[in-house]
Amino acid sequence: MDIKAYLESRCKIVDAALHKYLPGGKAYPRVIHEAMRYSVFAGGKRVRPILAIMTAETLGYKAERVLPAACSLELIHTYSLIHDDLPCMDDDDFRRGKPTNHKVFGEAVAVLTGDALLTFAFELITRNAAAKGVKPAGVIEALRLIAAASGTGGMVGGQVVDMISEKKEPSLPVLQYIHTHKTGALILAPIMAAAELCAAGAKEKKALRIYGENLGLIFQIVDDILNVTGVEKKLGKSVGSDAARKKVTYPALYGIEESRRKVRELRERAGKAAGHFGRKAALLNALADYVIERES
Amino acid sequence: MDIKAYLESRCKIVDAALHKYLPGGKAYPRVIHEAMRYSVFAGGKRVRPILAIMTAETLGYKAERVLPAACSLELIHTYSLIHDDLPCMDDDDFRRGKPTNHKVFGEAVAVLTGDALLTFAFELITRNAAAKGVKPAGVIEALRLIAAASGTGGMVGGQVVDMISEKKEPSLPVLQYIHTHKTGALILAPIMAAAELCAAGAKEKKALRIYGENLGLIFQIVDDILNVTGVEKKLGKSVGSDAARKKVTYPALYGIEESRRKVRELRERAGKAAGHFGRKAALLNALADYVIERES
Repeated sequence: MDIKAYLESRCKIVDAALHKYLPGGKAYPRVIHEAMRYSVFAGGKRVRPILAIMTAETLGYKAERVLPAACSLELIHTYSLIHDDLPCMDDDDFRRGKPTNHKVFGEAVAVLTGDALLTFAFELITRNAAAKGVKPAGVIEALRLIAAASGTGGMVGGQVVDMISEKKEPSLPVLQYIHTHKTGALILAPIMAAAELCAAGAKEKKALRIYGENLGLIFQIVDDILNVTGVEKKLGKSVGSDAARKKVTYPALYGIEESRRKVRELRERAGKAAGHFGRKAALLNALADYVIERES
Repeated sequence: MDIKAYLESRCKIVDAALHKYLPGGKAYPRVIHEAMRYSVFAGGKRVRPILAIMTAETLGYKAERVLPAACSLELIHTYSLIHDDLPCMDDDDFRRGKPTNHKVFGEAVAVLTGDALLTFAFELITRNAAAKGVKPAGVIEALRLIAAASGTGGMVGGQVVDMISEKKEPSLPVLQYIHTHKTGALILAPIMAAAELCAAGAKEKKALRIYGENLGLIFQIVDDILNVTGVEKKLGKSVGSDAARKKVTYPALYGIEESRRKVRELRERAGKAAGHFGRKAALLNALADYVIERES
């Protein structure tokens, strides 16, 4: 299993689809469509759409079956980064080594760009109803899952708790809440949305949920470890920026070694759940390993 | 037809539904749920949800048939006001006579509150699938219409053009674009979404679309006239604030008298379209008259 080649190939499918789905950069009113494309094509790794595609493939379907919903997750992820970077939020000037949306287009346009991407994400999911074999009820449930994962019971909730905890002593329950909501929810959502669009059975859904929950935690803890140990150039953001802001992170609370041990434990749980799919588990396992071994 | 009593009674249905649908104000993380409820229950007249209910009733159904989708429109309207009021946008301290969301909760929470309301709006629409007689495909089409009306081809597009036109000389095409997109789209959307949820026929949809398009224009021009002539207390915002900002408005371009004539012309067209529903047109006509005669 050459996971790097796999990710590159699926990334191309996602990029081509995003180009096709998004309104043209010259469409009126031009500034907002330019700004949307600027951030969507600013070098994202398409992790969330690829998770949806990977799930569809594990269940025996092709990418096309879940492509609009898969891409909607990238739009939601992008909107959240644009709003996070705003001066009134994290006040970041750079993201993935490029000036943030508000630095290029101004704050007002950046707010509206986030709003527009979030809105368009949901419009895009409805197009999944046209995919062969997908039932309307499956689209509705996928959309509901994605919305719930993005709102105050998911990503926005995690963002709020992260914000109000910044200058306080970190506690484990708060840390776990932030991880499972701010990052984990949008790692789990593409997997479960794809499961709905592929009409997965109850046992398949249960295995995918356990896999996805553990993968989400791995993702966040590895991210926090990289923030402490990573090379600035590779990450495209300042190393140690979490510590400087006194953000609640796993390494800050337990140190690097214990954080790495925790990652191994979560990886084992994810692998056990993936085992449900027998030989088809290879993709799920390879991706989990890749997330752990990545350097940026 | 006692339109005031009708509006009051439907407003109560909408308020009760919003209270039921929205997460509790004490639900964790508390600040975001408090902030959502603060702005949703800040005295809105529930025009958009009532338009959806009115459409359902004109088509022979009860409010329950369209209630989640109807309420979603109020959440989208509220999110747009919260983001519009931000310091980087219109920088307004008061809205409907109350301090704006960011004045009470701070800018970061206000951005996230808007995001959360927009996200929850789409989650809420999916609940309409549980309403008796509603088909999943109808819910998907209603959601698609609402998303399209809220994005860069609708409300956000209108907002962008309004923003970039502020310090320029107003032109009629620009003015019409702003009116039909910034306000009109979210007046038309509840009507057309309700038509989908009630499985209206092609001729009914066509009549409702013409009615809704004209009502949207009436709504915006009357709003602009009130901004020039209205009483500050009744409007809950500063009279003449559009002129102070050099906003493109109908009265600024054509004067009050010509604006009033235009409203009468639009009213006639709306009435002609409503005529399709025979005796059932009473509600549509009474509402159009009410919008024209309102003082705030």
